[in-house]
Amino acid sequence: MSARDQLPPGTFLRSLFDAALAAADPQLALAEHIPAAVTGRTVVTGAGKAAAAMAQAFAARWPGPLEGLVLTRYGHALPCERIEICEVGHPVPDAAGERAARRMIELAHQLGPDDQLVFLASGGGSALLTLPAPGLSLADKQAVTRALLRSGASIGEINTVRKHLSAIKGGRLAAAAAPAQIVTLAISDVPGDDPAVIASGPTVPDPTTFADARAVLAKYGIGEPRAVLRHLETAAEETPKPGDPVFARARFQLVASPQGALRAAAAAAMRQNVVPIVLSDRIEGEAREVARVHAALALQLRAWEFRVGNDVVRPPAVLLSGGETTVTVAGAGRGGRNVEFLLALAVALNGAGDITALACDTDGIDGTENNAGAILYPESIARAAALGVSAKAALADNDGYGFFAALGDLVVTGPTLTNVNDFRAILVA
Amino acid sequence: MSARDQLPPGTFLRSLFDAALAAADPQLALAEHIPAAVTGRTVVTGAGKAAAAMAQAFAARWPGPLEGLVLTRYGHALPCERIEICEVGHPVPDAAGERAARRMIELAHQLGPDDQLVFLASGGGSALLTLPAPGLSLADKQAVTRALLRSGASIGEINTVRKHLSAIKGGRLAAAAAPAQIVTLAISDVPGDDPAVIASGPTVPDPTTFADARAVLAKYGIGEPRAVLRHLETAAEETPKPGDPVFARARFQLVASPQGALRAAAAAAMRQNVVPIVLSDRIEGEAREVARVHAALALQLRAWEFRVGNDVVRPPAVLLSGGETTVTVAGAGRGGRNVEFLLALAVALNGAGDITALACDTDGIDGTENNAGAILYPESIARAAALGVSAKAALADNDGYGFFAALGDLVVTGPTLTNVNDFRAILVA
Repeated sequence: MSARDQLPPGTFLRSLFDAALAAADPQLALAEHIPAAVTGRTVVTGAGKAAAAMAQAFAARWPGPLEGLVLTRYGHALPCERIEICEVGHPVPDAAGERAARRMIELAHQLGPDDQLVFLASGGGSALLTLPAPGLSLADKQAVTRALLRSGASIGEINTVRKHLSAIKGGRLAAAAAPAQIVTLAISDVPGDDPAVIASGPTVPDPTTFADARAVLAKYGIGEPRAVLRHLETAAEETPKPGDPVFARARFQLVASPQGALRAAAAAAMRQNVVPIVLSDRIEGEAREVARVHAALALQLRAWEFRVGNDVVRPPAVLLSGGETTVTVAGAGRGGRNVEFLLALAVALNGAGDITALACDTDGIDGTENNAGAILYPESIARAAALGVSAKAALADNDGYGFFAALGDLVVTGPTLTNVNDFRAILVA
Repeated sequence: MSARDQLPPGTFLRSLFDAALAAADPQLALAEHIPAAVTGRTVVTGAGKAAAAMAQAFAARWPGPLEGLVLTRYGHALPCERIEICEVGHPVPDAAGERAARRMIELAHQLGPDDQLVFLASGGGSALLTLPAPGLSLADKQAVTRALLRSGASIGEINTVRKHLSAIKGGRLAAAAAPAQIVTLAISDVPGDDPAVIASGPTVPDPTTFADARAVLAKYGIGEPRAVLRHLETAAEETPKPGDPVFARARFQLVASPQGALRAAAAAAMRQNVVPIVLSDRIEGEAREVARVHAALALQLRAWEFRVGNDVVRPPAVLLSGGETTVTVAGAGRGGRNVEFLLALAVALNGAGDITALACDTDGIDGTENNAGAILYPESIARAAALGVSAKAALADNDGYGFFAALGDLVVTGPTLTNVNDFRAILVA
């Protein structure tokens, strides 16, 4: 394609991010997946950061009678007719969340074979959806959750325990709704998009057991609260397992995912005659180290040495990746993992020509700031230096926000009301 | 390709490593690049871990009269007729190194327009080739080198200073040999294969200046030794720059490189109907974090989602990468960066099926052990667990060597007498 047809690099990368966001937009994502009407009631439930937007999209497209209740974070509600939006505590569950979850399971219990339960799942749903099993208190669950978070247990291990202390997670909402038809529509923010992991799977089979949950606590030497251990040892009723009859009329539909967002960005790149390379939807690790690896791949592309089979991938090409990095904070600066990634990328590339990069959180909020992420240009380091800002010093201070704010290169979208994790795109022109 | 035609995964990966080693083998690499004879003397010089093997290969193929002197590490000498092999200190220069370097520059000074100087460059050459500039002592150079290593200066910054304290680096050997013809044959172990960086470029132009060297010391607040600062402020003679007449009859030939080794491995994969993906020749960063990124890419391939342009890369495929990772040691275990990488990869993949990986140092020595690296199999974690060895615990203890030794999965080659850095190959079957 001739130079005059090409968008400027920053505009091009922003167009890919917009394509990724569109693929994760609840309005667009749900449009094709609204289930058929049933003769009885249709009750919409759900939990997650995208729950309000998903409920709004569902209600706007649902022709018949509709009722329901979804849970989202404080500040994430939207106007929605017919489906109640409850704002509750996250990441630490609160009493408002417990009350709402109790009402949700009671709604499910009312349903019969002619009815249908819809569950709208999205990231954050696991923490939002809290209903202690009989004999346990919210304080018990909070205590063990805090102990697990401190212990270094993985999110999978934490959820194994949570599911076995809950009256709603791990398939128990489906058990309450059966024999109604059950439709789960999910926006995934987890690597691999495992239905049992997204929002801790209240409407899907739980492959984990009470014995697994006990093993997690034993592994990390967690011996309190006593009520929790007693429950895990004596509870009679396992979570419903794959093949359980409660799932006979249940169906799970992934409506948006990190992979889907990357595919959409790749398609947008192809339309602009830039070769997309979709590296992975699940890159995790320390942001600055992940950035160094991305820099090495970008330089390989720039050297016309990125080979696949017998072919060299020829620039213009764009590296795409998703997932969620982490930042071990050592400095006093501001900024989330995406600007940290970009700042480390800047240091690693050190002004290498022809390389421009965007990194943003698809939820629109990078860390706790007001930006989704930022854009790095080949001349960013030099421009910053002219302003008296050192990229290396900013990185040492974890001040990605300050660095890109000084350059005027933050990407600001506001909350997108969806979440398919981070989005990174590195253009080699 | 049908299953019966395929090598077992471990054997396949070892065949790729062997192809990479063959591409970096001094015997094979030099064969095509022996220069033509001249009417006068041909003097072979050189420095690096591969210097002895390169000298041996050169001498074996040189038909006429030959003389010379190359420097290598203690323990790295080989029998070689006509070219003297000197073993000297590395990484801290010693008096033997200084004496040998002085003899080398004196040899170069003897040459006239009918003669030719050959310089055999390889990794480690910069530290091995130490000749303090007039007015400086070896102790001065050692002191400033130690201060720079402690300061966090990059290798590029360190070499900028070193070149301006040296009577042989940064093109000064070429200046001594001119007007003789000068041929540099190099095995690169540096990202980007910059001739001025490999062995600190004694026979190639130096783009850096005394002012640059002073700026490095100022940046890191290094104010001693006084003799060093005085030299950088008052030395009259700059290193020869690009375009300097001393390079009029000089030519540089890269005979082996990390990129070349990866290309050779890719070709070997293609011959076995496995799609190679050459990610980068220059991946740097903390080994365990680099491993997590590689794991994410391997899982993307395994999910048939690794896309390039409009195409999905279909397994069997193999991810190839080079470069040099680092290990921040926190535990008391044994092992170099390659087994650390593989152990972290094992933890990240957690027994994912169909993924087998090899990581080895092409010099044959991973860290300070007797192995080049190891091979990770899908069942490695389970096999180790059966032996009472936990992958996570081994990783926490930096005990990659112990982990793979217990499994019998170390790769042992002995010193290969070449070095094109690390080699990693991850097969997704």
